[in-house]
Amino acid sequence: MSDVTWREIEAAARRIAPLAHRTPVLTNASVDRRAGAAVRFKCENFQRTGSFKFRGAANAVAALSPTARARGVYAHSSGNHAQALALAARLHSAPAYIVMPSDACPVKRAATEGYGARVIPCPPTDEGRRTTAERVGDETGATFVHPHDDPLVIAGQGTAVAELVEEAGDLDVVLVPVGGGGLLSGTLIAIRRLHPRARVIGCEPARADDAHRGLLAGRRIVDFVPETIADGLRTPLGERTFEIIRRLVDEIVLITDDEIADAMRFVWERMKIVIEPSSAVAVAPLWTGAIAVLGRRVGIILSGGNVDLPGNVLPSRPSSRRPSRRPR
Amino acid sequence: MSDVTWREIEAAARRIAPLAHRTPVLTNASVDRRAGAAVRFKCENFQRTGSFKFRGAANAVAALSPTARARGVYAHSSGNHAQALALAARLHSAPAYIVMPSDACPVKRAATEGYGARVIPCPPTDEGRRTTAERVGDETGATFVHPHDDPLVIAGQGTAVAELVEEAGDLDVVLVPVGGGGLLSGTLIAIRRLHPRARVIGCEPARADDAHRGLLAGRRIVDFVPETIADGLRTPLGERTFEIIRRLVDEIVLITDDEIADAMRFVWERMKIVIEPSSAVAVAPLWTGAIAVLGRRVGIILSGGNVDLPGNVLPSRPSSRRPSRRPR
Repeated sequence: MSDVTWREIEAAARRIAPLAHRTPVLTNASVDRRAGAAVRFKCENFQRTGSFKFRGAANAVAALSPTARARGVYAHSSGNHAQALALAARLHSAPAYIVMPSDACPVKRAATEGYGARVIPCPPTDEGRRTTAERVGDETGATFVHPHDDPLVIAGQGTAVAELVEEAGDLDVVLVPVGGGGLLSGTLIAIRRLHPRARVIGCEPARADDAHRGLLAGRRIVDFVPETIADGLRTPLGERTFEIIRRLVDEIVLITDDEIADAMRFVWERMKIVIEPSSAVAVAPLWTGAIAVLGRRVGIILSGGNVDLPGNVLPSRPSSRRPSRRPR
Repeated sequence: MSDVTWREIEAAARRIAPLAHRTPVLTNASVDRRAGAAVRFKCENFQRTGSFKFRGAANAVAALSPTARARGVYAHSSGNHAQALALAARLHSAPAYIVMPSDACPVKRAATEGYGARVIPCPPTDEGRRTTAERVGDETGATFVHPHDDPLVIAGQGTAVAELVEEAGDLDVVLVPVGGGGLLSGTLIAIRRLHPRARVIGCEPARADDAHRGLLAGRRIVDFVPETIADGLRTPLGERTFEIIRRLVDEIVLITDDEIADAMRFVWERMKIVIEPSSAVAVAPLWTGAIAVLGRRVGIILSGGNVDLPGNVLPSRPSSRRPSRRPR
């Protein structure tokens, strides 16, 4: 099952090099001061389509045979995978079919269509989604690309930490968000090859703690009701990612929604970059005390920056003010 | 009066080099596509204290004699200049006294004090501010540092565009926000030396249009009531900056608050970076039709990223959802 190796990550890096951004690695004095650590942020919020998901999707599409590519790819997703796969397909002139619940956010639907995908609405149930996806697959002959439980997708996600290590050098600790586990799996496989002694910590919302509970129970947990603000992390681990993570991860830490919100605000205010709640999950442990970071070199994958900005994020009603004058 | 030359900007660059960040120059495919131009963003939102103001303040403090430095610096400001001067002083182990209206935003006051400045509240009137500032100057012997109408401050602000040109090469058009005019003045002096043929456009909120009206009238306008969301640009030009701008600028364009809000949202959503409304003023002309940019190389100074995030910028109430499952 756990058939993704460093070799596949190297191959993914070569395949996606002409397509994906090599995202910057940022540091921030306020973060380092608050954490008492030397933190390096790999900024996948600056990746194409706004998240690391583009790496896995681009690798999966690039690996298809010309015939398969001509038939296209499909997935069901209303999140970052939808946009990532849509763009990856467009860059290879392949059709993309995205099954999306009929109640999905219109902005995300428009963004996915903007990348040239055909969006097929489905009833917002597991059953409705499954049967619609099956029908799309049957009718088009397209290849299904899973958002996380696919070896090519996992290998693609592993390229992010490989670039981080290349730029930042040795790291003592690597913090990665956990949802479906694709990013964490790819990171683990890469780090175990590049820096076997680095601790890799999966960071999971306390209100979507299937990975944490699953590792304790020794079996994948799928029946749970996630209620976290980190909407990208509401998915349970896949069968493949569960096995990789169980074998290689050092620890899963749980982060509350308040801690996520605090970390997200801190990054927006101090680093002046937009990250989504699912990224903030991996920042919060710097100062919640969940893990020891004092004096350590810490790498963090900021997984994405796709948030629906509320209408009132902008200061819309200026206060009427007297004119300022120079002092005499 | 207009006694700032390229030589002073070069001197400023040397003085602030050990203190200021050399901020990155970013590009963005979505921006270029929407504008039909090749746009280079100089990201002063990533500057220390979150705005270009640190450049001018750091230059002013660095230029003081050891004796004057020991007595310290003072200013009145409730905005970016307050934090910039506070940090610049602290880095030189000089005291900083900041006169701030008693109704100023508590967050900004705390930030200024966080950089080690002493904040002296004053009545929120021109008169109250002037008399309080005079008293602080008399009592401390500190040196007054004006937020924009000071040759050392103007020279410091000119270093931003010098770095931009060094990195981005030739530019056809440079867009700069106009409030007190320090950044535009420094930019004009630098560009006239580095790229005499580049057009430099001052971008001013339509509801704080003293520079635009003043250039038409041939005299500085100070009696007006600014009501723009671009809170950093509510100040009128200074006497010195008015003269420099009148002599050297190509054009002042006016930008409505709606255009500012749209540009700010576009940058947050597509570039994943946090900019303040005062920066968005210089982005909006890319697509409002105010100026010709099609096919041009455009440089934009993103002046800062200090915004008060509303409490509800974060998705606080997750919708309860059924667990996701892998498709079969």
